[in-house]
Amino acid sequence: MSESLEKVEQLLKQLPGLGYRSAERIALHLLVEKPERLEPLVEALRQAAANLRRCPITGNLTEADTCAIYADPARHREVTCVVETVPDLLAIERSGVYRGVYHVLHGKLSPLHGVGPSNLNFASLRRRIEEGEVQELILALSNDIEGEATCHYIQDELLAGRADIRLSRIGFGLPSGGGITYADSATLKSALDGRRDF
Amino acid sequence: MSESLEKVEQLLKQLPGLGYRSAERIALHLLVEKPERLEPLVEALRQAAANLRRCPITGNLTEADTCAIYADPARHREVTCVVETVPDLLAIERSGVYRGVYHVLHGKLSPLHGVGPSNLNFASLRRRIEEGEVQELILALSNDIEGEATCHYIQDELLAGRADIRLSRIGFGLPSGGGITYADSATLKSALDGRRDF
Repeated sequence: MSESLEKVEQLLKQLPGLGYRSAERIALHLLVEKPERLEPLVEALRQAAANLRRCPITGNLTEADTCAIYADPARHREVTCVVETVPDLLAIERSGVYRGVYHVLHGKLSPLHGVGPSNLNFASLRRRIEEGEVQELILALSNDIEGEATCHYIQDELLAGRADIRLSRIGFGLPSGGGITYADSATLKSALDGRRDF
Repeated sequence: MSESLEKVEQLLKQLPGLGYRSAERIALHLLVEKPERLEPLVEALRQAAANLRRCPITGNLTEADTCAIYADPARHREVTCVVETVPDLLAIERSGVYRGVYHVLHGKLSPLHGVGPSNLNFASLRRRIEEGEVQELILALSNDIEGEATCHYIQDELLAGRADIRLSRIGFGLPSGGGITYADSATLKSALDGRRDF
């Protein structure tokens, strides 16, 4: 196979969710089938890379000085949802049920992978808490040891002595539409632990 | 969401095999998680787009004047395998069992979609046949009405009165590892039609 095609496929294969077959398919699509789509895509990627930056307050992506959600006067700034990543934030936004603002940590505590508190976006969360903006903090962090550790860190280090701030963690359990038969045991454990009076 | 991010996701979503979720994942990967991967990918794509062209003899992609497979003296030029697309050619190459050369049609006859003989790479196949290079033509075209029509066109229009050239079509039937229970009826029909003495 041609060297420059191989190079493209090798780089595409490194992208999340792409295997060698999908990388080949996309490479040939952009180079042979629809070459007219290549330049607009390249241009849009470069434009986005140049325009996007991290919001200094929330850690979300933004083209402006602060992220559009935080800047929206209709959103409730006193409720802040803490998420690990921007895709997590976007998923919650798509659900359309949340009217507060966000704080993106850009990861979770994981000493095994060398991720300590200084590697995460805690400084501006601490600032937001100290400035008195936050009345409720909803932890939307993953249901694993690292997510758990991150929750405890926030509780112990950022909210110590702040009984005035309500701290909650999102519910875990059976996904909507998911059957009990096919649920894994960790999910079933969360579902049982998280049972509510009916 | 930011406008330039939306634009990137919208263009990525048009690529084959990508839905809105995988487009978002790739966009954020290239823009937030691993921005250092963006420029090499863009550069490789542009390089490939500039270097690659169609081989005037076989229709395969090439960076040189003729495709590397055709130019390889170890390949048997008297056997030519006719395929619809470059990915089809690459799939056969990966199997490692074929030592002849190829001819890529870049499609199949499909009057319903406005694809007639003049839209396919028949001219150089006709030339190859007329120049006496081809002793056997293997039709590796898909097992549907359009593939069938394309086979008949080659037999009637390109090989008319050429009893000296052996014409064959690849076998259809049960895929290797596939069970009879789960095979669709068209596949089972081909498998029965294609039975061989044991």
